[in-house]
Amino acid sequence: MMRGFDTIESMNADEVLVKRKRGTKRYMVAAAVIGGLFFIVGIMIGYFSHKAEAEGAGRQKPNKRLEPDEFIIEKVSKEFLDSKLRMFSSKPRLAGTKAGTEIAETIKSLWSESGLDEVHMKTYNVLLSLPNASEPNMVEVINKTTGEPVFTSQLYEAALRPEDNTTLIVPFAAYSPAGIVEGNIVHVNYGTTENIESMLQNLTFDLTGTIFLAKYGQISPKQKVQNAELYGASALLLYPDLADTNGRDNANEKVYPDSWLMPDSGVRREMLLDKYGDPDTPNYPSTEYAHYINPETRNLPKIPCQPISYHDAVSLLEVLTGSAAPQYGVVSDNGNGSALEVRVTVNNILQRRPIHNVIGIIKGSIEPDRFILLGGHHDSWTYGAVDPHSASAVLSQIVHLFGQLLQSGHRPRRTLVFCSWDAKEPAIIGSTEWVEENEKLLSERAVAYLNADLIAGGHFTLSVKASPLLQDALFTAAKRVPSHVENYKTLYDLWAARPNDESWNSQEPKVSYAFGSDGDYVSFHENVGISSADFSFTYEKKKFQGANYPLHHTAYDTYYLYKQFQDPNLACMEAGARFWGILANNLANAPLLPLRASRLSSAVSAFLDALTLELQDMLDTDSITLDAVISAVRNFSDATSKLEHDMNDSPELTANPLMLRRYNDKLMLLERAFTHINILPGKEFVFRDGTPGQDVSPEDIYLYDILNTVTDMTHGPEQIEQLKEQISVIALKVQSAADSLYDIGLIKEK
Amino acid sequence: MMRGFDTIESMNADEVLVKRKRGTKRYMVAAAVIGGLFFIVGIMIGYFSHKAEAEGAGRQKPNKRLEPDEFIIEKVSKEFLDSKLRMFSSKPRLAGTKAGTEIAETIKSLWSESGLDEVHMKTYNVLLSLPNASEPNMVEVINKTTGEPVFTSQLYEAALRPEDNTTLIVPFAAYSPAGIVEGNIVHVNYGTTENIESMLQNLTFDLTGTIFLAKYGQISPKQKVQNAELYGASALLLYPDLADTNGRDNANEKVYPDSWLMPDSGVRREMLLDKYGDPDTPNYPSTEYAHYINPETRNLPKIPCQPISYHDAVSLLEVLTGSAAPQYGVVSDNGNGSALEVRVTVNNILQRRPIHNVIGIIKGSIEPDRFILLGGHHDSWTYGAVDPHSASAVLSQIVHLFGQLLQSGHRPRRTLVFCSWDAKEPAIIGSTEWVEENEKLLSERAVAYLNADLIAGGHFTLSVKASPLLQDALFTAAKRVPSHVENYKTLYDLWAARPNDESWNSQEPKVSYAFGSDGDYVSFHENVGISSADFSFTYEKKKFQGANYPLHHTAYDTYYLYKQFQDPNLACMEAGARFWGILANNLANAPLLPLRASRLSSAVSAFLDALTLELQDMLDTDSITLDAVISAVRNFSDATSKLEHDMNDSPELTANPLMLRRYNDKLMLLERAFTHINILPGKEFVFRDGTPGQDVSPEDIYLYDILNTVTDMTHGPEQIEQLKEQISVIALKVQSAADSLYDIGLIKEK
Repeated sequence: MMRGFDTIESMNADEVLVKRKRGTKRYMVAAAVIGGLFFIVGIMIGYFSHKAEAEGAGRQKPNKRLEPDEFIIEKVSKEFLDSKLRMFSSKPRLAGTKAGTEIAETIKSLWSESGLDEVHMKTYNVLLSLPNASEPNMVEVINKTTGEPVFTSQLYEAALRPEDNTTLIVPFAAYSPAGIVEGNIVHVNYGTTENIESMLQNLTFDLTGTIFLAKYGQISPKQKVQNAELYGASALLLYPDLADTNGRDNANEKVYPDSWLMPDSGVRREMLLDKYGDPDTPNYPSTEYAHYINPETRNLPKIPCQPISYHDAVSLLEVLTGSAAPQYGVVSDNGNGSALEVRVTVNNILQRRPIHNVIGIIKGSIEPDRFILLGGHHDSWTYGAVDPHSASAVLSQIVHLFGQLLQSGHRPRRTLVFCSWDAKEPAIIGSTEWVEENEKLLSERAVAYLNADLIAGGHFTLSVKASPLLQDALFTAAKRVPSHVENYKTLYDLWAARPNDESWNSQEPKVSYAFGSDGDYVSFHENVGISSADFSFTYEKKKFQGANYPLHHTAYDTYYLYKQFQDPNLACMEAGARFWGILANNLANAPLLPLRASRLSSAVSAFLDALTLELQDMLDTDSITLDAVISAVRNFSDATSKLEHDMNDSPELTANPLMLRRYNDKLMLLERAFTHINILPGKEFVFRDGTPGQDVSPEDIYLYDILNTVTDMTHGPEQIEQLKEQISVIALKVQSAADSLYDIGLIKEK
Repeated sequence: MMRGFDTIESMNADEVLVKRKRGTKRYMVAAAVIGGLFFIVGIMIGYFSHKAEAEGAGRQKPNKRLEPDEFIIEKVSKEFLDSKLRMFSSKPRLAGTKAGTEIAETIKSLWSESGLDEVHMKTYNVLLSLPNASEPNMVEVINKTTGEPVFTSQLYEAALRPEDNTTLIVPFAAYSPAGIVEGNIVHVNYGTTENIESMLQNLTFDLTGTIFLAKYGQISPKQKVQNAELYGASALLLYPDLADTNGRDNANEKVYPDSWLMPDSGVRREMLLDKYGDPDTPNYPSTEYAHYINPETRNLPKIPCQPISYHDAVSLLEVLTGSAAPQYGVVSDNGNGSALEVRVTVNNILQRRPIHNVIGIIKGSIEPDRFILLGGHHDSWTYGAVDPHSASAVLSQIVHLFGQLLQSGHRPRRTLVFCSWDAKEPAIIGSTEWVEENEKLLSERAVAYLNADLIAGGHFTLSVKASPLLQDALFTAAKRVPSHVENYKTLYDLWAARPNDESWNSQEPKVSYAFGSDGDYVSFHENVGISSADFSFTYEKKKFQGANYPLHHTAYDTYYLYKQFQDPNLACMEAGARFWGILANNLANAPLLPLRASRLSSAVSAFLDALTLELQDMLDTDSITLDAVISAVRNFSDATSKLEHDMNDSPELTANPLMLRRYNDKLMLLERAFTHINILPGKEFVFRDGTPGQDVSPEDIYLYDILNTVTDMTHGPEQIEQLKEQISVIALKVQSAADSLYDIGLIKEK
C-alpha cells in the first residue's frame, strides 16, 4: 500500500511520505519538485485559512466582488456544459474499459485545471462483467434437423443516426454468466411469481430447461432471474414492451431519431445483482490489500440472461409460433416436438479490473473537518449523454465555478468534496468502495451528500429525493435559481406548481423521502446515515407513464437525443448547475447548518402513520403493538421542538463557536440514527425495493424501505417474531435520534 | 415507554413530558412541583453555565478556594469510605434480588444527596440465573443398593467469623441449567482439550454420561463446560485447587479468617456464558419494548454445573476411591460396577428480573456534549467487600467530592457521568445493556470511560489496564497522589518502582494495553471504541502467583477480609479515590484533551511486531503478507507525529475554540477506528481471551485480543483465508485511524 501526496493536509505542515519497495527514487524527485511548489502555495493558503479561522466563526469577510450565489447564477456557462456533454458522451464509457479510464483522466485534468486544492484519482480493482466485443451475445432459432439458424437476433442496436456507432455497444446483462443454452421459449409476461404460477395452471408440461422470455417491469431484472432459476429455466431473455416503455398512448408516435421514444430496435441494459458494491468484497473496500471472498460463494445469477429488442422478441415468437405478437403464456413448443428450438449464446466476461473515481477537494477555512460532498458517476452503459453525462458535465461546471471562487478568495467555511464515480452502472461500485474505505471519516465529518445521476429525464419539472433534513435547504436554493420555464419566476415556483403527482395537495414543492437503492447516494445514506439528496428534471408523468425516459440504457442515449429532446437548449443543465451549486455553497458556508430537524421528525411521524395503517389488522390480532414506536416518535417530535426553540432563542448562537458547533453536530449526526434499521440483525443488506436499475418507488415516505421490509415480512405468520423484533429496533433508533438532540441525552429512567 | 424528567436538559428550557396511559395525573402534580423547583435551580445553573460558556473556551474562571485537584486530595475521607464499604457489603447483593435492588436505591439516594445535577436509576429486565435459597444445590455420593447418600457436599461455605452468615450465599454457577444427574466421577484436571485427550489414552471405558470434576484455571469455566459437553459428560463439578488459589508455597500458611488465603471450605462462583450482556437480547438493549430471542436459541450450558470446595472435592474422591487427594485421571468407577455413584442436584432458577443501574450526571459548562464516564458495579456474588464494594464506595466518594465542588461553583468544562452498574457478575449485563441503549450518543460524545471493579486485590502496587491514549493522563494523575506506601513520594513513584513484572525494563510505570473481557469497560471499549482505563491495587506477583486474590467470589469476600488483609487502614481506597478523581477532573477540565496519540501509534507498532513474530513461519510459506499492515502502521505513526507537531506548534490553539475542538475530536474519536476488528465479518463476538471471571491475560500488548484471535486462527490450514481476511481488515482500520488525524484525511490515490 502506497500513499500519495497528502497535499491538502500539507498546507499547514510537511508530511512524511510512505513509499514502499519499487519506484521510490523516481517519486522522490517528483515529490521534491511538486512538494516545493505545494509548500509555497501551502504557505499562502495556510496563511489565509488561518486568518479566516482567527477571525472566528460565523463571520464572512467583506467582499466587493460577486458573492458566491450571484457568481454561480451568473457564471454557469452553456458553452461549457455543451462542450463537456459532447466530449464525455462521445464514446461509451463502460467501467473497466479504455474509454472508461479515459473519461476519469479527462475529468481529473479538467478539475485540476479548475484550481481545486487537490484532485486525485482513487482506483479499485473490482469484479466487473463486460460484454465480449468480438463475440457479441445472440439469440438464434435453430432448425433442429439441419442445425442451421433460421433466425438470429441483432448483435447491436440499429444505427439510426449517422454519428451513432452502435457496434461499439454490445447489448448484455451485467453479471449474467457466459454460456450457451438451447431449449424452448416460454413467455412469462413480467416474470413475477404470480405470472408464472398463473401460467402453470394451463401448462401441460414441465418448465424445467425452458428459456423464459420476460418483459421488463414490475420487478427487478435480478428478481426475474431468481424466479427463472426457481422454476428451473435454463436461460432468461428480457425485452422492453414498447407499450410500457413508450407509454400506452404513444403506439403511433414517431420514435428515435424523430422523438425521444424507443424504436423497436432498442435494447435496455441492466445489472443482475441484488447487493451493491464489488461482489467480491462485501462490506469492505476493494483496496489493493483487500481480501476477496471465495469465488464459489459469489451471489451471481446462475443461468445465462440476455436483453433483446422488442423487435427481436416479436420476430422470435413469430418464427417459432407464427403468432403476430409476443404474448404472455405463448410457448414455442408444448412438449410435442417442434422442429425449431432457441439457442442463447452469452459471451460475457467476468473479470477483476481497475475502476477510477475522481475526487476533488477544496479545504474549508474554519471547519475543514466538516464535509459537503457532491457526486455523480462517469461510467455509462452506452454513450450515456443523459445518464450520466448531463450530470457529470454539470458537476464539472460546478467544480469550475468553485475553483474560480477559490482563486478569487472565497474559501468556503467547510470542506467541499467533489466525487465523480466509476462503475455505478454495474452495481454502484465506485461510490460504495470509497465509502467503505472512508467510513470512519465520513461518519464523523460528512454533513451532506448531494447526488445527481442525470440532469434531464425530461424538462417538465424538478424531481427531488432527499433526506427531510435537507428539504428547506433545497427550497432555499431553488428560490435563488431563475426558472427555465416561462411564467415561473424561480425554479422553486416551477417546482411547486408542477409537483407531477396528482395526489399532491401542498403549496410546497414535492420532495420524495424514499430513496430507493439506485444511486450513488445509497452507501452514504443507507450505510453511513449521511443526509443526502438526489435530483433531476423529469417529464410530465400525467402525459407519459413510463418508469424512466424511454431510451434509458439504450444505445440511443446520445448527445443528439439529449440536446434535441431531453433538454432543449440545455436549460435544465443550466438550472441544475445553479441549483446544485447554490445548495452546496449554502451548506458549505452557513454558520448554522441549514438542516431542519422538525422536517425529519414530521417525516418520521408520517412513517409511523403509514406503518400503523400497514399493520392495522395485525395490531388487532397478533399481539403486536406499536406503543414503543409511538412514544419514541412523540419524544422525537418534542425534542425537535425544543431544539428549534432553543436555537431561535439563542441570540449569542453565531457568536459562540462551540455552541454553534454543538447544534451543528446534532444536526449533522441526526440521521446517523437511522442506518441499517431495515436490516434485521444477522441478515445482509440487499437492494431493498427490489428495483435496482428501475425508477424509485412511487411511495414518497421517509423510511419507506423499512415500511417495505416490514410489509414483506408480514406475508407469513412465522414472521411475526421478526416483525416484533423490527418494531423494537425502530423504536430504539427513533428514541436514539430524539435523545441525540439534547446536550447530554443519555436515556433516562422510565 | 415512558420518559421521566429530563432535568438536566431542562436547565435551559422547558421540556414536554411524554407520559402515556396510566398515572398521568398523579405525575403531573408532582411534575408541576418538582418542575417548579428545577425551574428555579435551572435558571440559576443556566445563568452560570451560559456565563462560563460566554467566557469562551480555554479559560478557567479565577477562584480563591481550593482548586479541584487540591480539593480532591484533601477531602477524600476514610470515614466516608469505611462507612460506605461497611454498608454496601453488609449483605450479599446478587443482581435481581431484594438486596440487589436495595443497594441501587441506596446509591441513588447517596448520589442525590451529593448534589449532582441529576441522578436516575435505569432498569432493565434481563435473563438472570439465581441460586435457589430454599433448595441449595448439592453433590452426594449414593449407595446404589440402598439409595441412601453416604456423603453430601456442604450446602453453604462454613461460617468462619461470627458476623458471616454464609447461609445467605448459596454456591452456584450462573446459567447452569437446573437438573439432577447421576453417574460416575472422572477427574479431568483443568478440563482442557489436552487434559481430556491425554486421559482418554489410558481409559478403558466411554466418558459418555460421566460427571467431570475439574479444577479452576487455565481455561474459562465456560470452556470447561463446552469441553464436558463435547466429550459427553452429564454434569461438571468445579473446584479450586488450593495450590493454585493460594499459591504453591503457601500450603502451610494460615487461611481465612487468619489471613487472606482460602480455607478448604471456600467455593468460587463463576458464570458460564461466553458472551456479555443479556443473553436474550444480543446487540440490543433490554428495554421494556425489547424483542427477546427464542429461548430455544439461547446459548446456555446444556449440562448441570456446580462449584464445590476443595474440601468437598477431596472428600468426594476419598469416599469413592479411598484415595487421599483428588488427582487427575482418577475415576470413581472404571465401568466394572461400583456400589457407589454420584448425584449432582442443581436447582438454579433462570428468570427474567429487573436490574438497576444508577447514573449520576454533572452537566459540563462549555462542552456539555462531551462525556467523561466513571463506572463500576454494585452487584456481588457474595458480601463482595473487595469485589466490588471497595470500588463502589470509592466511586460514591468521588461523586460526593464532585458534588461539593459543583456546589462551590466548580462546574466542569465537560459533562461527568457516574455509573454504578448492576448485574456485572452474571455477564456484564448492566453496563452492556446501557451502552447498547445509548450507543449513538456514546459513540459521538464519550471522551473516556474510567472503570474500577475493585480497589485492592492487594496493596503492593497499582495495576492499570488502559487505552494507550490515556496513559499520560494516568501518569499525570498518579503524580498528584501521595503514595500510601512509605519511601515513595507519589503514587507514580510507587507504581514506577513496582511494575510487578520482572520483564519490565522501563523507567515508566507499567500500563497493560490488553483489557481482556472481564469488566464493565468491555462494551465501551470493545463495541464503541471509547478510550478506557481500569485500575486496582494488587499484591506482589513475585510472592504470590494466584490469578486473583484468593477469596475472590467466595463467601469470605467480607468487610473483615478487606480491612484486615486486603487494604489495611483503607490506604488503597484513599489513594484510589484521589487517583480516579483527579484523572476524571483533568479529563473533564483540560481545554486540550490529555489523550496522547503517539502512545497509541507506538502501541500499534508493538502490536505489529508481535503479530509479525507470531506469524513468522506463515509469512514465509503461506503467501501471507503483512505489507499492508506495515504500511498502515507507518502512516499512522507519521500522522501522529504530524498531529502532535502541529498541536505544539499552534500557539493560538487554546484561544481558538474551533481549532481546539477539532484536535479534541480527532483524539476523542481515534480509538473508534479499532472497534470490532477482532470479529471476523459475519461472526458474533464472544469473550475473546476465553477467561471471563478470570484475571486478564499476562500479555500487555495493545490489540492483544486480535493477536489472540489471529493466533487461534492459524491452528488449521483451512483458516489461512480467514487469516488473510483478518489482516486486510487490520490494515484498513489502522489506515482509517491514520487518516482520521488529518483535517480531511480522505484516502488518497495510491
